[in-house]
Amino acid sequence: MIKVKIIGAGGYGGCGLLELLLRHPQAQVTGVIDIADVGKPIGTLLPHLKDYYTLPICAPDDPSNFTDVDVVFCATPDGVGMTLAQKFLDKGIKFIDFSGDFRFNNPADYAGYASRIGRDGSHASRHLLDSAVYGLAELHRQELKTTSLVGNPGCFATSCILGMAPALKHRLIDSPTIICDCKTGVSGAGKKPSPGFHYPARYDSMNAYKLTGHQHVFEIKRELSIVGETDVNIVFTPQVVPMCRGILSTLYATVKQGITAETVMDAYSNFYQDEPFIRLFSSNDTVMTSSIRGTNFCYLTIKVDESCSSLLVVSHIDNLMKGQAGSAIQAMNVMFDVPETQGLNLPAQYP
Amino acid sequence: MIKVKIIGAGGYGGCGLLELLLRHPQAQVTGVIDIADVGKPIGTLLPHLKDYYTLPICAPDDPSNFTDVDVVFCATPDGVGMTLAQKFLDKGIKFIDFSGDFRFNNPADYAGYASRIGRDGSHASRHLLDSAVYGLAELHRQELKTTSLVGNPGCFATSCILGMAPALKHRLIDSPTIICDCKTGVSGAGKKPSPGFHYPARYDSMNAYKLTGHQHVFEIKRELSIVGETDVNIVFTPQVVPMCRGILSTLYATVKQGITAETVMDAYSNFYQDEPFIRLFSSNDTVMTSSIRGTNFCYLTIKVDESCSSLLVVSHIDNLMKGQAGSAIQAMNVMFDVPETQGLNLPAQYP
Amino acid sequence: MIKVKIIGAGGYGGCGLLELLLRHPQAQVTGVIDIADVGKPIGTLLPHLKDYYTLPICAPDDPSNFTDVDVVFCATPDGVGMTLAQKFLDKGIKFIDFSGDFRFNNPADYAGYASRIGRDGSHASRHLLDSAVYGLAELHRQELKTTSLVGNPGCFATSCILGMAPALKHRLIDSPTIICDCKTGVSGAGKKPSPGFHYPARYDSMNAYKLTGHQHVFEIKRELSIVGETDVNIVFTPQVVPMCRGILSTLYATVKQGITAETVMDAYSNFYQDEPFIRLFSSNDTVMTSSIRGTNFCYLTIKVDESCSSLLVVSHIDNLMKGQAGSAIQAMNVMFDVPETQGLNLPAQYP
Amino acid sequence: MIKVKIIGAGGYGGCGLLELLLRHPQAQVTGVIDIADVGKPIGTLLPHLKDYYTLPICAPDDPSNFTDVDVVFCATPDGVGMTLAQKFLDKGIKFIDFSGDFRFNNPADYAGYASRIGRDGSHASRHLLDSAVYGLAELHRQELKTTSLVGNPGCFATSCILGMAPALKHRLIDSPTIICDCKTGVSGAGKKPSPGFHYPARYDSMNAYKLTGHQHVFEIKRELSIVGETDVNIVFTPQVVPMCRGILSTLYATVKQGITAETVMDAYSNFYQDEPFIRLFSSNDTVMTSSIRGTNFCYLTIKVDESCSSLLVVSHIDNLMKGQAGSAIQAMNVMFDVPETQGLNLPAQYP
Repeated sequence: MIKVKIIGAGGYGGCGLLELLLRHPQAQVTGVIDIADVGKPIGTLLPHLKDYYTLPICAPDDPSNFTDVDVVFCATPDGVGMTLAQKFLDKGIKFIDFSGDFRFNNPADYAGYASRIGRDGSHASRHLLDSAVYGLAELHRQELKTTSLVGNPGCFATSCILGMAPALKHRLIDSPTIICDCKTGVSGAGKKPSPGFHYPARYDSMNAYKLTGHQHVFEIKRELSIVGETDVNIVFTPQVVPMCRGILSTLYATVKQGITAETVMDAYSNFYQDEPFIRLFSSNDTVMTSSIRGTNFCYLTIKVDESCSSLLVVSHIDNLMKGQAGSAIQAMNVMFDVPETQGLNLPAQYP
Repeated sequence: MIKVKIIGAGGYGGCGLLELLLRHPQAQVTGVIDIADVGKPIGTLLPHLKDYYTLPICAPDDPSNFTDVDVVFCATPDGVGMTLAQKFLDKGIKFIDFSGDFRFNNPADYAGYASRIGRDGSHASRHLLDSAVYGLAELHRQELKTTSLVGNPGCFATSCILGMAPALKHRLIDSPTIICDCKTGVSGAGKKPSPGFHYPARYDSMNAYKLTGHQHVFEIKRELSIVGETDVNIVFTPQVVPMCRGILSTLYATVKQGITAETVMDAYSNFYQDEPFIRLFSSNDTVMTSSIRGTNFCYLTIKVDESCSSLLVVSHIDNLMKGQAGSAIQAMNVMFDVPETQGLNLPAQYP
Repeated sequence: MIKVKIIGAGGYGGCGLLELLLRHPQAQVTGVIDIADVGKPIGTLLPHLKDYYTLPICAPDDPSNFTDVDVVFCATPDGVGMTLAQKFLDKGIKFIDFSGDFRFNNPADYAGYASRIGRDGSHASRHLLDSAVYGLAELHRQELKTTSLVGNPGCFATSCILGMAPALKHRLIDSPTIICDCKTGVSGAGKKPSPGFHYPARYDSMNAYKLTGHQHVFEIKRELSIVGETDVNIVFTPQVVPMCRGILSTLYATVKQGITAETVMDAYSNFYQDEPFIRLFSSNDTVMTSSIRGTNFCYLTIKVDESCSSLLVVSHIDNLMKGQAGSAIQAMNVMFDVPETQGLNLPAQYP
Repeated sequence: MIKVKIIGAGGYGGCGLLELLLRHPQAQVTGVIDIADVGKPIGTLLPHLKDYYTLPICAPDDPSNFTDVDVVFCATPDGVGMTLAQKFLDKGIKFIDFSGDFRFNNPADYAGYASRIGRDGSHASRHLLDSAVYGLAELHRQELKTTSLVGNPGCFATSCILGMAPALKHRLIDSPTIICDCKTGVSGAGKKPSPGFHYPARYDSMNAYKLTGHQHVFEIKRELSIVGETDVNIVFTPQVVPMCRGILSTLYATVKQGITAETVMDAYSNFYQDEPFIRLFSSNDTVMTSSIRGTNFCYLTIKVDESCSSLLVVSHIDNLMKGQAGSAIQAMNVMFDVPETQGLNLPAQYP
């Protein structure tokens, strides 16, 4: 049984983990850690879980945090994980961070990312960056098997990387620029209320934001450049629509002349042939985010217009699942060598 | 292993059963039956389930429907179950019907119900009414253990009956009239599109309906009269609000003079002390339908105003779970003597 | 031309006034006053109005606030209007307050109200209470014609009072207790974000709240007692549903024996015969809040069940219009003796 | 006073016209024509308008349709207007059609469009195509002044054409391909219920559709090719999100090397300098569709990334206003030489 503790348990990330681990036959939650409401049961923060978890919230500096635990999920804002990781790693405890703190091996990439979220580019655990693994199992399964430190991918980034990786791997792309037009539900912005996500302001309104530069572009660029062994350029437009869960990323690229729809579909089928959470669709299929809502699936619709060598991929994920907690559990499963779909093998609840 | 077949698998009722039975360790779906799309896999109708079920849809008259099956759920509109039940019962197959066909033991009650939904009051299997059990486990657990024929309760009715049964059982009520002010999400109206549930017509609009008389009033009246051993009168106002899942029923009654808040809370605690799916709250607690969304729970908030002898109960359920498929699985568990929470013991997914 | 200034212009109340006054042929906004963003144009706070208003926000203590103005709307939280009213009245400027500060003529009633919102019961302008008029034109039209000080009614209160006043006026009610089961959209809670109104927490969730006592019950009780010349008792249950605009209040009372549906409908028709914003419907009509969304109408559906002497009234208003800014403009029209529907005579925008 | 009749008055298009014409000081509705509910007042179909219009619905073949009328709006599905236009034109009555029937001057373009909506490419009034004007006032104001026959633009098309026309006019674009990633609220699909727009299926789900080819691409391509005097290629991805009103189209193009952000903004400012309904924003501004909801405005956010010569334009309209009824009224104003903003000069109602 994998013993799990969660830092930042009261947010959407922690909530997702707590829900998923209830279904996991080989893992159990042994502690929840937060800065607020110390001593209270986690059900105080998350009323729907009070019949399921009676664990009291521990303070971050509680010495018991380091005992009875195999892996810690750090579901906290940027800048927290980097100050905590070493302490857990020192005791042989694996560490999976939900922020951007460990998504980059390169201080320069981290600094670029950091500048987009208003943080200075210095990193409190720069020495750990080398050993951190980007926690996207589809691309880093082998490295996950041996690492103790994981940076859980960004939600938008996951949808874009999974959507374009096969095309880059198979050298189908002609132009270096990939357009990522991404729409997300509001839960992607977290649990904290703000004017733009107040129900009356949002229920019938959508908008693009961070047009001057979103932080996720760095990890998309990095991952796709690695898989394609070439420098890619990302034009990334984040948008919010009035729904709770779901990302729909529409990706545009130019394929090399002569590349047919069949070639592309073959490349994607080949790349994802054994993947338990990826499903491929053609432009004739009807695909909606509701089909993957609450699940760890990524549904990819692929269309090639041979007349103008254009490739269109529509990538569908649940931002809180494949885009966050589900992906983290999948990475944990790989790290502990248990079946990769453990705890994740349930369909959406519909409608 | 309980072998289950589902008639009317493509609607919300059948969909809920298919989802829940995936989690059930002691039951499995061996067949799906529908009038449309015969021969196609059920995933054609319910795309989010196509990775989980490959069963082809069988026609209602397919002889194989009667083999390899212990219980049939008939998730169809009113009038269908009454024509099918006997055939399955004859072969020793238990039958759980989702419509009003088997909710009444008395032809007169059925006729009243039928008149409210535009059906004539004759019943195609009148001889079976006597042996049918109203499938609300909290009130009919003993009878469920031995019956083969169940009428699954209406969603509004479940919320009202569970909310008022303890007060009647413990003889707390003074006046015969109970007001049931009920609000439901749109999924309660089923999967079929209609002008009032078209997204643009509904997204920011609520309304009361069937003010001239809703059919659920008959089962509420009957069940509460039985439990209270007195004739109760129900004023019932159904209302639709722009959400998908959830019923919030606000129930008003007058308690006998001198009845205190403590007496009432004791009565409810006593009545529901061993119930796995009922939770009680006081008027100081914050309770939202999101806490029970997607679950089989019923949350009851109880308030007594001693100054005017008024009792207020707010009853929260998910109309598709405790109000439909969840309740049916709970009844099945009782009927087959497996633990009552099997397949139902998961919390809401939040947010 | 009536010259209008608005205090608290950036909230939903101020916003509604600014929108309505654009359509008003006999009134114009000459100033906007707020504590924040002083000096900036109001379009900074309300981007959809920046093409329509270029007025800069003035500080509350700006001496120019008292010039070039006939009436001030004080769209601020409780406790502000009571400190400002006298200064404007002294200069002959009429004062319409949106909070509960001037809804009561009686310090005791105010103290009751105040206790429900966490304020102490003392009133900074107690000497003004006597001359304040409750701004519901349908009940206080004559007094509005001569007053300079108005307390704009609460949104829930408006729906309940309009729904029950005719029954009380015509002495149709038998029991002193009236049940008000009220549902509101989220905009009723104002513009400030909070956890319960964060989009992901609210999009598919409803709840009852303030079960221990809501402040609006005092004005409902007072107004209905006056019109009925009897003491009425109010059971009031506020509920929030996931929509933006709209209140649907379902009201229950017992009518005297022998009172027929026809008698009741006649009483309501008589009471509201010349009212421009009230419409009556029977229980056979389909009425939805979308029909009055964005308008100053109140739609009342009336049903009498003669068999049990029960009266049911469903009252539909837009909480920000007839429940707030629309009602205030209507009161202003009466106070300045211009046609009562000026600025208010437009239908809903559908869908 | 312009006398107006509306064919297809009960749909969203007709509804929008009826609402707008109430505010129009120089136009009035003298007749409503529909195939259903003939003889009934229009308020039967549109309950929110029953206090405002008492006109009975006339049958399409009612001879009175041709009297007391200066202009007819034909708010019907494709294929209807082409059979009716000549009859009205013969009597000197102007004709504004909401479908694609008169959006093309060229039978070949029409045939392409028709093939995308499952119609055969023949046109019942081919001889009229030459004289029809595409009703986008910003691009065809001069032609509108003299024509009697207008094809009202498609909603998606309007957002894309307005977003890219200045860049093409000023020869800023380098590559012939323009990507139009378009998201719409559900009202764009009309009033008729269907499974994908049923509230429970849509409230938390988004999807791309018609990936094999949407009909609006033809008018976008045509209009932009004319204004740019060059052949443009359009990649067009329509998407539906769970909201009622609003289109947000994100447009991507490559600008010529050396083109700066300033050059682009100057070009747009110049192109739209006197336009009453176009507003320009930079990538630093926060722009949401709620600001233009219910209005005739088009808000354009413009961003140039000089490092990779990319142009991004986010175009915001209300699909039922600037995307449909508002645009049609604007065209009518031009045709009848009344001020272009008549009836259209009101802001959004917020929230």
